[in-house]
Amino acid sequence: MSKQETKKEELHHVVVLGGGFGGLYASKTLSKGKVKVTVIDKRNFHLFQPLLYQVAAGWLSPGDIASPLRVVLNDYQDTYVLKAEVTDIVPKEKKVVFRDGEITYDTLIVATGSYHHYFGHDNWAQTAPGLKTVEDALEMRRKILLSFEAAERETDPKKQKEWMTFLIIGAGPTGVELAGTIGELTRTTLKDDFRNINTEDAKIILVEGLGQVLPTYPLDLSAKAEKFLKKLGVTIKTNAMVTDIKDSKATISRNGDSETIQSRTILWTAGVKASSLGKALAKNTGAQLDKSGRILVNPDLSVPGQPDVFVIGDLANLSHEGKEPLPGVAPVAMQEGKYVAKLILNRLKGKETKPFEYKEKGNLAVIGTNSAVADLGKFKFAGFFAWLVWVFVHIRYLIEFDSKVIILFRWSWNYFTRKRGVRLITGEDPFPLVDSKKK
Amino acid sequence: MSKQETKKEELHHVVVLGGGFGGLYASKTLSKGKVKVTVIDKRNFHLFQPLLYQVAAGWLSPGDIASPLRVVLNDYQDTYVLKAEVTDIVPKEKKVVFRDGEITYDTLIVATGSYHHYFGHDNWAQTAPGLKTVEDALEMRRKILLSFEAAERETDPKKQKEWMTFLIIGAGPTGVELAGTIGELTRTTLKDDFRNINTEDAKIILVEGLGQVLPTYPLDLSAKAEKFLKKLGVTIKTNAMVTDIKDSKATISRNGDSETIQSRTILWTAGVKASSLGKALAKNTGAQLDKSGRILVNPDLSVPGQPDVFVIGDLANLSHEGKEPLPGVAPVAMQEGKYVAKLILNRLKGKETKPFEYKEKGNLAVIGTNSAVADLGKFKFAGFFAWLVWVFVHIRYLIEFDSKVIILFRWSWNYFTRKRGVRLITGEDPFPLVDSKKK
Repeated sequence: MSKQETKKEELHHVVVLGGGFGGLYASKTLSKGKVKVTVIDKRNFHLFQPLLYQVAAGWLSPGDIASPLRVVLNDYQDTYVLKAEVTDIVPKEKKVVFRDGEITYDTLIVATGSYHHYFGHDNWAQTAPGLKTVEDALEMRRKILLSFEAAERETDPKKQKEWMTFLIIGAGPTGVELAGTIGELTRTTLKDDFRNINTEDAKIILVEGLGQVLPTYPLDLSAKAEKFLKKLGVTIKTNAMVTDIKDSKATISRNGDSETIQSRTILWTAGVKASSLGKALAKNTGAQLDKSGRILVNPDLSVPGQPDVFVIGDLANLSHEGKEPLPGVAPVAMQEGKYVAKLILNRLKGKETKPFEYKEKGNLAVIGTNSAVADLGKFKFAGFFAWLVWVFVHIRYLIEFDSKVIILFRWSWNYFTRKRGVRLITGEDPFPLVDSKKK
Repeated sequence: MSKQETKKEELHHVVVLGGGFGGLYASKTLSKGKVKVTVIDKRNFHLFQPLLYQVAAGWLSPGDIASPLRVVLNDYQDTYVLKAEVTDIVPKEKKVVFRDGEITYDTLIVATGSYHHYFGHDNWAQTAPGLKTVEDALEMRRKILLSFEAAERETDPKKQKEWMTFLIIGAGPTGVELAGTIGELTRTTLKDDFRNINTEDAKIILVEGLGQVLPTYPLDLSAKAEKFLKKLGVTIKTNAMVTDIKDSKATISRNGDSETIQSRTILWTAGVKASSLGKALAKNTGAQLDKSGRILVNPDLSVPGQPDVFVIGDLANLSHEGKEPLPGVAPVAMQEGKYVAKLILNRLKGKETKPFEYKEKGNLAVIGTNSAVADLGKFKFAGFFAWLVWVFVHIRYLIEFDSKVIILFRWSWNYFTRKRGVRLITGEDPFPLVDSKKK
């Protein structure tokens, strides 16, 4: 059943761990050279994470933002895809260990990304799901949409209010985009769907530990984003730390005062931690980890003392020219992926490669239909034009993933009708959903 | 927070259990009269079940064939939707009991449908999932797509063959459509995606207890369907009963002989059983159940002795003019829903209604792109034209559910590229996926 093996053995074998932006761009660039590439991911698809919040809000289907890795890498002759869960890396033996097998490499690129984490409070995950995987997004969608169904049935005003309160913790781009989308859900999409509740009465609270929403943005753009969010009914609490989450209650500490927020829908967009492979790699190589679990890499993104092992994307801490480490965003991962691939191809030809330099392209965050903020270095702007830029940038990158037509269609449909979407509640409902006995 | 209640109390209150084809058509027709309608479903969406197999095969997203009940019923003023799981019906008190609440009615329509069942072998469900819900379809999709990933990694030829064997039990329309779609997956969609396996080597086996595929179709059309299936590489075993399913092994008994088929992907499309509410209703009213758990209804679809309780769709056994009970298909449920709604409106005006008569519109089953069989009574035909009819009939009914544009687009895309789809493996993988230690 096996196809005839050709002389692939002779080719230099690059193993890429992770099919996210970093791994994919590395693989695509590598495939232009004379190397054998094996991409290993525990999922069979690349996920376009910047749009995952739209799945959580019921605007897009998971399939709209996911492309099978085999399809994306189909045209590259010496590129292999393996679906496997990596548990360890053993550089001494040039070997990657799976849960159920292993593979050897000549050069290794580790691009396994990051996961949301709860600053040592893992029990909060039960109540306040994060947003990194398709399953996470569907769980958020379930919680958000179910809230309105429960509020519609609930007759106890206090409990109804809890169902109608949405608490989003963390006002980075994902938190801001999620809060804005829930604002639009309550003000347009769901407005006419219920008989006993007015969805516009929903309370949406966005909590941020630092002093402004979008903390990495210039202050004037953050202020614009706050204005857009308030228009959509979002209450913003900055300088506010979450100290406890339990059942339907979050405790917030702010300027020394403590406040309790009752909400049945608490969503976590606050912290990320690097993939656990960082720890395994540090153990086996003596490399250092920063406090988020990222590997401190050399200027060429290799692991200190391991010229054949590279770390890119969210798992790498490159303290760029003495500045802050590069942020965990798609453009950084893409550029690092391309850079490492070129370095490997150069090295095989005996050529040197200059240290990695990140070309800052700017930052974009969308708050709602027609409103976004854009920080393009020299140009900073907000509103409809920023939103248009956001739409085009995302569609441009999606092009590579073959999904642009369906997403463009869905967005246009949503834009003009403000109605449709993927509003399915799947999975198990909590029991009892409502405590009232009679309607 | 509650909207002002108007004089709805005075309206006759019809409660509809189930938002499938039967419940939805009943509600839509009722809403034209002066009644208050409450539709109760444990899901928040109507599912276009005839296309569920396309979700299972990774051609469509669940969101493409699901419409929120609130959206579908949005424009009807006195129509309410409640998301609740019904556990009992108490006609003596004109009351429906939920897991967490209850509601009273003046007239009740029960349209809670059917589920797949395993003829007393519930343990088979673990190995051989059925296809009734979105979750079922995603589990089938996971199993089907994972098989190829595992086969690609597996080096033991015996185990690789098990992964490449797909066993579909039950050759009714769903089984035939599923087998045909898996045939197309292996022959077109996935053909170029793998390096170690040829997906065309996959063995697809379709098992049927009766003497022909599509047992309710005329013999010549069944023969055509068999021909189409064989072209897609499907092996057909008729007059074959499954006697055991365990791990990756199914035992088939055929003409007194017993055969064992090794397959890691066994899919169940054989039997359905009526919703358990039938049992509850029978207990509380003395109504009779047939062996599939369906209520034997009066010629006007009411429950014997209960003029205010109607049963429609898959849960009703109407032995039509002494013939076989009507089949559990969408057109029957739709016509019954409309009929009961009209009867109720007539009754409120003091008018009589003639017994229900089913207008047979014909049957359609699709085997693959460009091939289907159509039995329209006078006209029986197969091939490309039947396939075109199938496409138009399905799009026509989808129109009501607002999804036609996206599905038309996806189908056209698939038709011309034979490539795209929603090929995500989500959920938990089995461990170990492969037993081989080295690639």
